Formats: sequence, C-alpha cells, structure tokens
Amino acid sequence: MLEKFGHGGDLLTAQELYGLPAEQFADFSANMNPFGPPAVVGELLRAYAEAIGRYPDPAVRGLRRKLAGHHGISEDELLVGNGAAELIDLAVRVLQPAEVVLAQPCFAEYGDAARKNGTPIRTIRLTPDSQFALGGEDVEQTVRELRAAGRSAGDALWFLGHPNNPTGQLIEPETIRLLLDRGERVVLDEAFMDFVGSESRYSFLREAARTEGGRLIVIRSMTKFYAIPGIRLGYMVACAATIASLRERQVPWSVNSLAQLIGEAVLAEEEYARRTLDWLREERAWLSAQLEELGLVVAEGHVNYVLFRIPPSFGLSAGELQRKLGERGVLIRDASHFEGLDETYCRIAVRFREEHIRLLEALQAALHGGNSRLEGESR
Amino acid sequence: MLEKFGHGGDLLTAQELYGLPAEQFADFSANMNPFGPPAVVGELLRAYAEAIGRYPDPAVRGLRRKLAGHHGISEDELLVGNGAAELIDLAVRVLQPAEVVLAQPCFAEYGDAARKNGTPIRTIRLTPDSQFALGGEDVEQTVRELRAAGRSAGDALWFLGHPNNPTGQLIEPETIRLLLDRGERVVLDEAFMDFVGSESRYSFLREAARTEGGRLIVIRSMTKFYAIPGIRLGYMVACAATIASLRERQVPWSVNSLAQLIGEAVLAEEEYARRTLDWLREERAWLSAQLEELGLVVAEGHVNYVLFRIPPSFGLSAGELQRKLGERGVLIRDASHFEGLDETYCRIAVRFREEHIRLLEALQAALHGGNSRLEGESR
Repeated sequence: MLEKFGHGGDLLTAQELYGLPAEQFADFSANMNPFGPPAVVGELLRAYAEAIGRYPDPAVRGLRRKLAGHHGISEDELLVGNGAAELIDLAVRVLQPAEVVLAQPCFAEYGDAARKNGTPIRTIRLTPDSQFALGGEDVEQTVRELRAAGRSAGDALWFLGHPNNPTGQLIEPETIRLLLDRGERVVLDEAFMDFVGSESRYSFLREAARTEGGRLIVIRSMTKFYAIPGIRLGYMVACAATIASLRERQVPWSVNSLAQLIGEAVLAEEEYARRTLDWLREERAWLSAQLEELGLVVAEGHVNYVLFRIPPSFGLSAGELQRKLGERGVLIRDASHFEGLDETYCRIAVRFREEHIRLLEALQAALHGGNSRLEGESR
Repeated sequence: MLEKFGHGGDLLTAQELYGLPAEQFADFSANMNPFGPPAVVGELLRAYAEAIGRYPDPAVRGLRRKLAGHHGISEDELLVGNGAAELIDLAVRVLQPAEVVLAQPCFAEYGDAARKNGTPIRTIRLTPDSQFALGGEDVEQTVRELRAAGRSAGDALWFLGHPNNPTGQLIEPETIRLLLDRGERVVLDEAFMDFVGSESRYSFLREAARTEGGRLIVIRSMTKFYAIPGIRLGYMVACAATIASLRERQVPWSVNSLAQLIGEAVLAEEEYARRTLDWLREERAWLSAQLEELGLVVAEGHVNYVLFRIPPSFGLSAGELQRKLGERGVLIRDASHFEGLDETYCRIAVRFREEHIRLLEALQAALHGGNSRLEGESR
C-alpha cells in the first residue's frame, strides 16, 4: 500500500509499488498547495549556500517576531517546530495527559504520539450521518465518561483537527467553547486553517494565546499552504507559561536555518495567499461536482482536499482503486487507513484543472472501464 | 554572555551583546569547517526550489543507502536524525537508562537530554593532569560505584565524546573495550571523528553495528565536517534491533528533504575531505604554537578546535577575555560553562590563517595591551 509509512506524498514508495519514475505521478495523496512554493523561496535558496554554513538561531527570533506580528500575539506565546509533527509529539510528552481524546477519523499523528508516550486513547466516533462533525452532545457524553472514569477537568488532552483531516470539517465555535467551559484541555490542530477563506472567523489562535493554564493550544503548519513540506515548519500558540515549558524540552536547533528564512519570507506573500484562496474556491467546487457525476459520494468540507466514498455498487475498495490509479500514475490516499473509516473511503488533494482531468480520466476507467467522456474531450 | 542558549555559533546573540553586525564577526565559538559547505551544496540549492515542494522521504532511503555503503554496514543499522542533538535526546528517551554517566567536561547536550528526561547523572571528573583523558581506572572505579548503587551491567548509559568536546581528546580503544567487557552500555559521540586524520583506526562505528543488544551506539554529525549546521544532519549506528526501536519513536519527517539531498551529495566529496585534513594538520599546529607564544596553555587534541587555559598571571577570566575579543569582532567560547572547567578555560575553532591573525592580534591586545607584533607584521 502507498501509506507504507502512514502518510501520503511518499513518491519513492509509489515508485516501488507502481513501477513509474517518481516525477511522473500526479500526486493527490498529499494535501499540498499545487501552486508550489512562492517564487521568493527559489530566490532565497540561491542566497542560502552561505547561510547554511551557520547554526540556526536557536531561539528562532526573526521568524517568531514576524509570526507574532502577523497574528497580533506576543513572541512568548509562540513556539516554532520542525513541522507540526514535532509539536504534536512534544505536547504529549511535556503535558503528560492521563489520556488523549480523539474524534476519529482524524490525523494519525495524534494517536501515534500518544502511543509512543504510552498514553491511553479515548475515541469519539464521528459518523457520515452528521458529515463527520463533532457535536455538543459528543462532547458532553465524553466529558461524562471522563468524570465517571475518575478524570478531573484538564487531566485529558483533546486533539482536534480544525479543520479536521481527512474530513475537511471545521468544528463549530460553540463546541470548542463548551469544551473549554467544561475545563477540558484542548489542542486544536489548525494545520489547514490557512485554506479556509474566512480564517479569522474560525481560528482560535488568538484565544489560545489568551487562555490561562495552557487549556487551549493551537498548532499551525506552514507546510501545506506554502507547499514547503520538504523543509518542515510549524508553530504552536498557547499562553506564555505553557510555551516556556514546551520550549524547555524541545531539541536544540530543531528548526533549521532555511526553514526560518523561508518562513519569514513566505509570510509576506499576500498575493500568493489571495491567489490560492481564489483557485481553491473554484477548483474545489468543480472537482467535487465532477466526482459526484462519476457516482462517488463527496463529503462537505472547507479545505484543499476532498473525502469521498465509493458506493458499494462499484464493487471496488479504496485500496483497489488506489492501485488502479497508481498504475496510471495518479496517487490518491486510501482513507480506510484512517481509524473510523471503512474500505470505501478515499481522500484526494485539490490541484489544478489539467491534473483533475487526468485524475477523472483514470477514475472513469477504474470505475466504469474504458475511456471516459472527459478523456475524449481533452484530446 | 555569548552562550545565552548554551552553545557557540550564535551570531544574533553576539550582535546583541557586542553591537557589531552579525556578518562582521570572526567566529571561533563554533567548531565549523572554515572551507564552508562543498560547492555542490550551492548547486543543489539552485535545484531545490522544486524538491522542497514535496514531503521528505520518511524513511530517508537514498541517504541511508549511501551512508551504509560508505561505512560498510547495513542500512538497518543506521538512523538519520535532525542533527546529532535529536539523536542524543532520542537515545535517552527510548533507552530509558537508570542513570547517565558523563566524563566531564563534555558536550552539554548529554546532560541536558538526561535532565529533560528526568534521568540522574553520574559524573566522572577528567583532569588537566591527564590531559582530560578518560582512563581505565576511571572506568573501573565508576563501574564499581554503579554496582555498589545496585546498578547491573547495562542499566546505565555512558555518553562519551570520541573525540571529546571541548577537550579534543580521543578515548583509547582499550578503555572503550574495557567498558564493553564490563557489560556497560555506551554511546560514543563521534561528531568530530571526520576531522581525525586516521579516522578508521579510532572509530567504533562498524563495531557498533555488530554489537548485539545495543550495548554500543555511535553518533555521527555531518554538520561540522561539511560546514552545514544550518540544515541539521546527523546519524546513529547500532545493531538493527536497537535502531528499529529508536526509529519507531522518532518524529515523522524529522529529517528535511534538503538535508537528505545535501547529505547524499557531500558524502561523495573526497577531494574536499582531503583538503580539509591537510589544512587542519597545518593550521592546528601553527595556531597552537602561536597561542603558546602568547603565554596561553594549550591542551593536546586531534580535532578542529583548541582548548586553552589563561594562566593566573594575566589576571583575566575566560568571560572577560570573551568580552574583550567580542568587542573587536572576534567570537570565542568561554569554556568555563562546561561543567568541570574553571573560569580560565577557552575553546576556539581552527580556521584560516588570516582569521587566526585577527584572533591573535585581538588576543595580544587583550592579554598584553597595545598593538601586537603580529599586527605590525600584517600591515
């Protein structure tokens, strides 16, 4: 399977599995901005051969200052990490919760970090009937269970994707407030929040900086929106005391120099950000409509990836579909590897129109056999 | 102090402290190859703007294959990390020793990793009388103490620099063998081993791969020899079972794409390696002799840095000397921050002749006042 190492975007495994050279795949298995990195990244790289010969700033001063300014918070309320993955791992290790609460399906790293730390996991099952949304009743029920199990407010650590991966669902603000009112400790993973048009209406980043006792922590990634997964860059926002205790346990020079420089540069790319949101609005709608036309069941969502279900009438599992598309050089995520999703679910990134056409042709062939209408049109 | 974040090479702190722009310092406070990164790094960077848009290979396959081939070991006996710092931290967290044994003075990260993990530290004091060498009697004595404290063979984890930082001393092979014979568990930090001319005679890397039960682990850094500290790259060698258990707990994509590409490229740079060893043999000897001529007491050593002591007759502490040089744009390490060294010790990197002359002029002025003979000569 393509998810040999638990994630998408693994072109070397694709090459081993499907026998095509890595560069020939259309990769829908990782949720990256298809515009590629802002042009400034290339310019920086040319200048970087010299900077790479020095140690990274251990305190990430330049980037922290810019991020704090960007979000209107203090530098002490912000910790930069070697990708969001490092910060998720660090949160579990430093906060040492009695248990971790997950609303599944969700990003695999939350559970992996808990398991690495020996922390028990409590699971809320999100269901397709409610479009995989976490509801107030889920929260109340789980808090009751926690108390019944002898857990006081704040003993457990909730990891919630906002928006959630792989479902693309945002959490309603009142649901988050309910959690905080109940005294629960929450990490909101806002790795994909930049892709949500009216981000400022949904993000809890500034509230995290103001929330005492580290009860609310927000994690952001710069990897997806700025299409720089190769360089690893994420950050975490919480009250200053919580950030200080997390920073103390972080590995020194965890964030390399290039990541710091690139982070500073891309933050200023407002035109790139606008263009990305315009593209996403249009292409996501078009792609979703096309997938439905092929007979697939598409989940609602607000981000640069789409979760869909293969109806049983096709007699095809997600794994089989992945293999059929892989052999045609098109990579998708077999979403059945997400706990809580069955073998009918796939996740694909939103990319550019011509790649969508290649994907849709391959889907047409895999689902219905033979050439597609779209293929005919595009030749 | 310059070591605000516990290490050298921190130009931003130097700028804050001494009021000169970061690029104007001659930096002897970090032990980097002064040749700068091999030219191939610049070429790679120009090509990298595209590669940065993809996730790093989570299994670091290309670089692991090359490193394994380079050292004549198997890929399963090797783990690549986000700098040696990540691997030191990972070793303590995963192996969970009952205590950590350090021969001090040594690199601060060993003790920091132990403290972060809540692991007690047992200290062996190395002394100037024996040129800071770890001897067989130190080992026997400490093993006796461990047994008396109820520690069985393998309960403790020894971290030993080989060569040691800041002293530059190699450990005699028979001392290492004695440790292994006593059943102790040892991490040899060979971060600076590439700078030791007849490396193959001293390195225990291949022996680590063959040692069952993870009793011997070797850590290497690619940062110092190839002058790429900005990008973070180190690796660890041990038996396959130990490597597998360490890998399981590593944060995913810990090693960024650029580090993987650069690591593969610089390994092939044999001419760069030869040139570096030639330069070091000549410049280290010259610099040591000049320091002695200024009245400083220079420790023996085999690497690209020099530990020296300021005799009491100068009435000057290492911290005062650091400040005097810093104000002249020359950065050195105040080595009194290393546990086990008093306020008379400094550490400097070996660099190029013209930088040495600038350093020696500044030293002459700080130690003896006024202009130096060297300054006169160089104008």
